[in-house]
This record gives sequence, C-alpha cells and structure tokens, in this order.
Amino acid sequence: MRIALLGGTGDIGEGLAIRWARDTSHTVHIGSRDPEKGKEKAAEYRSELTDRGFEVEITGSGNETAAAAADVVVVSVPPQYAADTVASVAESLEKGDIVVSPAVAMDRDKSGFHYDRPEGGSIAEVIARATPEAIPVVGAFQNLAAGALTDLDNELDYHVVVTGDDPEARVDIKELSEEIDGIDALIGGPLANSGEIEAITPLLINLAMNNDGLHDLGVKFQ
Amino acid sequence: MRIALLGGTGDIGEGLAIRWARDTSHTVHIGSRDPEKGKEKAAEYRSELTDRGFEVEITGSGNETAAAAADVVVVSVPPQYAADTVASVAESLEKGDIVVSPAVAMDRDKSGFHYDRPEGGSIAEVIARATPEAIPVVGAFQNLAAGALTDLDNELDYHVVVTGDDPEARVDIKELSEEIDGIDALIGGPLANSGEIEAITPLLINLAMNNDGLHDLGVKFQ
Repeated sequence: MRIALLGGTGDIGEGLAIRWARDTSHTVHIGSRDPEKGKEKAAEYRSELTDRGFEVEITGSGNETAAAAADVVVVSVPPQYAADTVASVAESLEKGDIVVSPAVAMDRDKSGFHYDRPEGGSIAEVIARATPEAIPVVGAFQNLAAGALTDLDNELDYHVVVTGDDPEARVDIKELSEEIDGIDALIGGPLANSGEIEAITPLLINLAMNNDGLHDLGVKFQ
Repeated sequence: MRIALLGGTGDIGEGLAIRWARDTSHTVHIGSRDPEKGKEKAAEYRSELTDRGFEVEITGSGNETAAAAADVVVVSVPPQYAADTVASVAESLEKGDIVVSPAVAMDRDKSGFHYDRPEGGSIAEVIARATPEAIPVVGAFQNLAAGALTDLDNELDYHVVVTGDDPEARVDIKELSEEIDGIDALIGGPLANSGEIEAITPLLINLAMNNDGLHDLGVKFQ
C-alpha cells in the first residue's frame, strides 16, 4: 500500500510516517505545501530510521504529488486547513483511494481544553464534504498523542476508533492501523459518529494537565 | 461516609450501590421519588449481597430522606430529571455535602448514539446550577456501564474521570471511586471539562454495536 501524509511535516504526520515506515512494508509519502520542506522532512525521518537500523522507503514532495502517489491519503494538517488541503489535492484522488481524517478542532479557556465541534458535526465530516464523492473518507488516529508516536523507544498500547460510511474502506484503515505495533482498532460506525471520538483528544490533554506523571495519553476501551 | 443514590432504583444507581456496599464500609441510601420503591429496591440489593455472604447496610426511602441522611448525594436519574431532582432535595443538603453527577444526555439516529450536549455545556453543569451555591458538585462515573457494575461476578478495570470546581470535593470523590475494586480515578479539572467525559458514553455504545463480542465497555487512559 502507498500512504501519503498531507502536512506530514507536523507532529502527528511524523509519528504516523515513522511508525508505518518502521513497522510495515508500505511506502510512505510526506506531503507539504512547500515541496522542499516535504523532501527535507522525508530525509530526516529516513535518516532517523536508518540510524536505528531500519531500511525504509519515505519520499517527500508537495501535497498534490504525495496524494497522486498514494492509495491512502491522511489529512494530517491543522483542522482549520483540512477542507482546503483535501480540496487542493482533489484532482490527484482516484477511485479506490481512501482519505483519512485524524484532525481535531479544540479551543482552550481557563478550565482547560475543549472540543470545538465544527458545524458539520466533526472534522471528519467537514473533510468528507470537501472530498470527491467517489472517494470514501474515514476518521481515525484522532486520539493518538504525537509525542507517544514520535518517540520510537515508546511501546504503544492504544485503541484507534475507525469511522466511515464505506464499510470496506473502514476495514482497510482498521487493518492499516493495526499494522503499527501496539495499536488495536475498533469500528466506530458511520462517519457521523466521529465527533465523540474527536472530543476525547481535549480530554486527554486535560487529564495530562491535572494528574502528575501522566503525559501523551491515549485510550483503551475494555 | 454516607452515600445517597437519588434514583438509586435505576441501573447505574443499583450498580454503584451494590459495589459500594460490597467493597466499602460506607452506608448506602437508595432514594426514589416513590419511597416504597426505594425501600423495596434497597431490600433487593441487600438480599443479593447477603446471598453472596456480605453483611451490608443499605436503606431505602424517598429522595429527600436519602439526601438528608448522606454526605455524598449521587444524582443517578435520567438526565432530563437531573436538575429537578437536585432542586427537590436542596433543603436536605448541608455544608460539607457533595453532589455527584453521573448522568449523560444522548440521542440516537440511524448512525448510532450521539452526545446531546446540554445548553449549560454538560449535565454536571446543569446540576450545579440547580444546587445551592455552598454545595460542591462533582462529575464522575459517566463512563461506567451499568451492566458491568451490576454483575458482581464481573471484575472491573476502568477509569473514572472526576471533575469539579472544588479541589477537595474532587479528591473526596476520587477516593470514593477508588474504593470500588477495579476502579482508578483521574482528575479531569474544573466542572467545565465535564462535557468531553459525558460524550464518551454514546461512543462506548457505538463501539459495542459495531464490534462483535464487545459489550458494557468502559475506558482506560494510558
């Protein structure tokens, strides 16, 4: 499988990129608005993994080139840019591709972080409206802490919840999630169920802020 | 400590009542709008625990009598009755008491269950507005499945997240939670952070509906 991380130069993009590169044989494409930055970051991730003795395939480019090269396109950009980013690569998407939404919109006040529910119900649904109709959109990875992923010495033990209106695409992304060591994935139902998953992320930050010794929290359902 | 479960004749009230009665030496008071029903249910819980060889103290009464007898008053009624229920017992609350909100408002559509966020931000905050100002309100227990609690053969392994604006009351309820075998509690910060915790409950139901073999799910943060 070929995976593109649009905005793959950011923390969560980096975390998913290096985990997939290390734990699977899929090719990983780092996209950025600035193609040079995409190439630089791809080289940086490659070199981190090479230093650890892993032979990996990570390329970098502009977002559009990355999307064109991939079957799975992860929109790992800040939530306010998610719809524009997916619209900007729409012509590079082909039947059979899957768009993945890991983004969460949050705001902060004196109490802590709060879920900033978008008008469409969730960022996953906002992305779906910006995506060509033939291309399924799947919500996933919202509750993984970038810090937990990017530290490759850190052993993961988390659940990912996968939502989407296309059952096959949902299962594809469930399996792709579970190829990362330490990740188990659960099906959350249709894309309309994404908001409750996105809303866990500000809670995870609040828990880290209010409990000594906890950081980069994730979630398990049992 | 003396614990009242208003609406303690319902599933979640029953679950908390029999767990506290079994695992601690606190007295448990079952409140109901109908005092006779409160008494009947208290007798039922007592007899279940006696059958299992536990000597427990559970009494039943109207909600007001239960609240008057207790230091910790858990508003375990359906969310639409939460504010009225706490208002109906306001005169029985004394300085030093703590009101606890385990309720969650949900609705359901063809996709699954969704968090029905109250105008105040959360049911915990709705309850706080109906509670005399001197009495701290704490959110807790929202993500525990009644089925998991009421089956005493079931070993628990869940987190409870405790929110509230009074740090001492929050710690009291954290400790009271952790006296139930298999429960660990985390501090979630001020009461304004309760919405993201309440929103997990519909997700837990969606996960049980969409994944074979899962039911009565709870959550762990790690």
